Amino acid sequence: MTSKLAEMEVECIAVTPDAEKLIELAGRTAYKSFDKITDESAGEFIRRIVKNGHESVLEHAVASFRISGISRACSHQLVRHRLASYTQSSQRFVDETGATYVVPPSIQNNEKVLKLYWNHLHNVEAMYDLLKQEGIPNEDARFVLPNATATEIVMTANFREWRHFFLTRGDPHAQWEIRALACTIFRQFQEFAPSVVDDLCIYEHRSAGLIIDRVVEE
Amino acid sequence: MTSKLAEMEVECIAVTPDAEKLIELAGRTAYKSFDKITDESAGEFIRRIVKNGHESVLEHAVASFRISGISRACSHQLVRHRLASYTQSSQRFVDETGATYVVPPSIQNNEKVLKLYWNHLHNVEAMYDLLKQEGIPNEDARFVLPNATATEIVMTANFREWRHFFLTRGDPHAQWEIRALACTIFRQFQEFAPSVVDDLCIYEHRSAGLIIDRVVEE
Amino acid sequence: MTSKLAEMEVECIAVTPDAEKLIELAGRTAYKSFDKITDESAGEFIRRIVKNGHESVLEHAVASFRISGISRACSHQLVRHRLASYTQSSQRFVDETGATYVVPPSIQNNEKVLKLYWNHLHNVEAMYDLLKQEGIPNEDARFVLPNATATEIVMTANFREWRHFFLTRGDPHAQWEIRALACTIFRQFQEFAPSVVDDLCIYEHRSAGLIIDRVVEE
Amino acid sequence: MTSKLAEMEVECIAVTPDAEKLIELAGRTAYKSFDKITDESAGEFIRRIVKNGHESVLEHAVASFRISGISRACSHQLVRHRLASYTQSSQRFVDETGATYVVPPSIQNNEKVLKLYWNHLHNVEAMYDLLKQEGIPNEDARFVLPNATATEIVMTANFREWRHFFLTRGDPHAQWEIRALACTIFRQFQEFAPSVVDDLCIYEHRSAGLIIDRVVEE
Repeated sequence: MTSKLAEMEVECIAVTPDAEKLIELAGRTAYKSFDKITDESAGEFIRRIVKNGHESVLEHAVASFRISGISRACSHQLVRHRLASYTQSSQRFVDETGATYVVPPSIQNNEKVLKLYWNHLHNVEAMYDLLKQEGIPNEDARFVLPNATATEIVMTANFREWRHFFLTRGDPHAQWEIRALACTIFRQFQEFAPSVVDDLCIYEHRSAGLIIDRVVEE
Repeated sequence: MTSKLAEMEVECIAVTPDAEKLIELAGRTAYKSFDKITDESAGEFIRRIVKNGHESVLEHAVASFRISGISRACSHQLVRHRLASYTQSSQRFVDETGATYVVPPSIQNNEKVLKLYWNHLHNVEAMYDLLKQEGIPNEDARFVLPNATATEIVMTANFREWRHFFLTRGDPHAQWEIRALACTIFRQFQEFAPSVVDDLCIYEHRSAGLIIDRVVEE
Repeated sequence: MTSKLAEMEVECIAVTPDAEKLIELAGRTAYKSFDKITDESAGEFIRRIVKNGHESVLEHAVASFRISGISRACSHQLVRHRLASYTQSSQRFVDETGATYVVPPSIQNNEKVLKLYWNHLHNVEAMYDLLKQEGIPNEDARFVLPNATATEIVMTANFREWRHFFLTRGDPHAQWEIRALACTIFRQFQEFAPSVVDDLCIYEHRSAGLIIDRVVEE
Repeated sequence: MTSKLAEMEVECIAVTPDAEKLIELAGRTAYKSFDKITDESAGEFIRRIVKNGHESVLEHAVASFRISGISRACSHQLVRHRLASYTQSSQRFVDETGATYVVPPSIQNNEKVLKLYWNHLHNVEAMYDLLKQEGIPNEDARFVLPNATATEIVMTANFREWRHFFLTRGDPHAQWEIRALACTIFRQFQEFAPSVVDDLCIYEHRSAGLIIDRVVEE
């Protein structure tokens, strides 16, 4: 039995087709300005509504991500975003034997502490096994599993909420793990909906590492 | 100047690609039962979660409709559904000259009343024109426009909310217009996500006309 | 038969008791800093969380208002705030004979237009009566009622949402009627929860009249 | 150093004053039937709207609870209710030395396992202390803390959502801990808003213990 390191994985499993065109099509309903739509008009339209704070139009486009290899500490924060939908692997129903574990950088970078950390996780796994052998059900045996235990979750949100997520969780004060998650998802948005996040950028912060912030206009 | 009859039009302008497969993929995260996925397994999986009331999984799929030719009376009810996103043509910004109007069946079916109704709408249009000529801005001139005035709105909601919409607005007690809208959208769901609405059906009600209700199991 | 002018009335019918103390009590749970609570500490605590953007704590306090004498044009905008609860008088069920009507300032201030406006509303009332006499039910007779028709609505929202309401609807670009409503409710907040709105102020705008904006720090 | 047992405590820290009267007052706005209000009419009015499924009116009343002595496993479920507001003690900021721990009944009732469980928790505490001594910050040291660790949270929701909470979390399939929480809050509702929960009852289930279910009409 060897405790295993979790690796964060983020896969976009669904996104509104032609999301930027849909946003423009929906958004132009307010003024009935459909005649202004061209093959290239969506980008400018979206950058303008974002600049003017009319973000409700962004809600018509939606993206879903499968997120795995994050800690339960991270997922407990994640599900606090109430304008989103979640399906998470359940420690009540799934046997967590063979689970993987997240290691914080402050521990990863300290050889002595890291050894003690993994040793502790081995003891946790042994304890979980023992509880299972004694007939304790999954939902109660999990009481000994630590925050470090990796989980898997599918999260769906509209583009307005994802922007809110980028700004609050990409902030230097956010936990390092959820901030890394925000950056990863942000990069995927830069691919499939660049105009929606065109006013935001990933920066190297002096102490916090990578963060998301508004682009500074010169 | 001739006042014109509005006709309800409903166009699906976006829907989650492979929606039923996405729902199954997301839903199986709870039990990590991905090995049970086959090319045909989504339908049965969805019918089971609907039957068991685990509808949160349906939230991962989303559909957007462009709805036009409904009255402002109808749209005022529509936007009361808070778990959805809307962009509506604005009477504050759009000049409503040339608007179309909805006629309730009780008026359509009464020749004498119908004539008076259209005559009244002509007077309304004349009044609106006059206010515009006197320099009254759109947002104030619209104060004379009636509930009958047709509007256009884009509505996006997830499948769980659409099911809720079908049951509350397809009910015999719902207003005839929003019930007709619910039936129209419901029929489109039967095309692109049949398993999601497989427990529901359009019935001919003894007095209310077409309604949506649960399929009676024999 | 004389059509009557509607007057906006706003009555606070419920508010969380000792709202500011409750916000502090709830808010200090995050850091377990309950020992810092004194008889006077709530105000400073709230001003700090507002300043730092930690507004989720404000959600624990709630206020309900009975709003009458606003137009259906205004209420249609009002109910677009989705993080609130509403009960509105129903034109489907209530006989609107004897309804009152809202007059926009641009019409009120134009003697010639005002006379035509009231004359039109008399015609509307006559038409509504006639439809009722012909046996048309309330829910269909209302199709001739204009946006000007006054309505009554109870709205409940938490303090975070009320702040959002003040800023979006107190804006110079908001409709004059919903902006007046925002200012009226804002003044009541200044009485019962002054710290919650201490960073906001009603200003006289050069063209829009009274607006709500952030206090400019010197 | 002795690990300590957590005890669930639930305190109602705020509730809408005269909640049932407020619900009636708001609810009667729909039909403008204010003349039917008497000193005793609220109860019957509320039981009727609940029976008819018009629960939106219940949203005007709100209750807040301080909940402590529940596990982080329980709070992770709790915050999945999205139509509510939360402030939770943060393991990122609060030093968890001296934390208390929840023991599942299946472990409590097994003397041998119980001894091993507490022994494990002592090891966890020692590990947490060690990480702290090595300079690991709270937000990373907490990665070794188990799901059993007790937390404190303030939860505010409207009465409609609380009813939904009672039915979903008082269900025999719910986790025993959140079900016990649901029953505890439910009993407080029976005191301050009896009509709102008059159709629900706590039952002794053959295997699950206490549950909440609809009253069976005879």
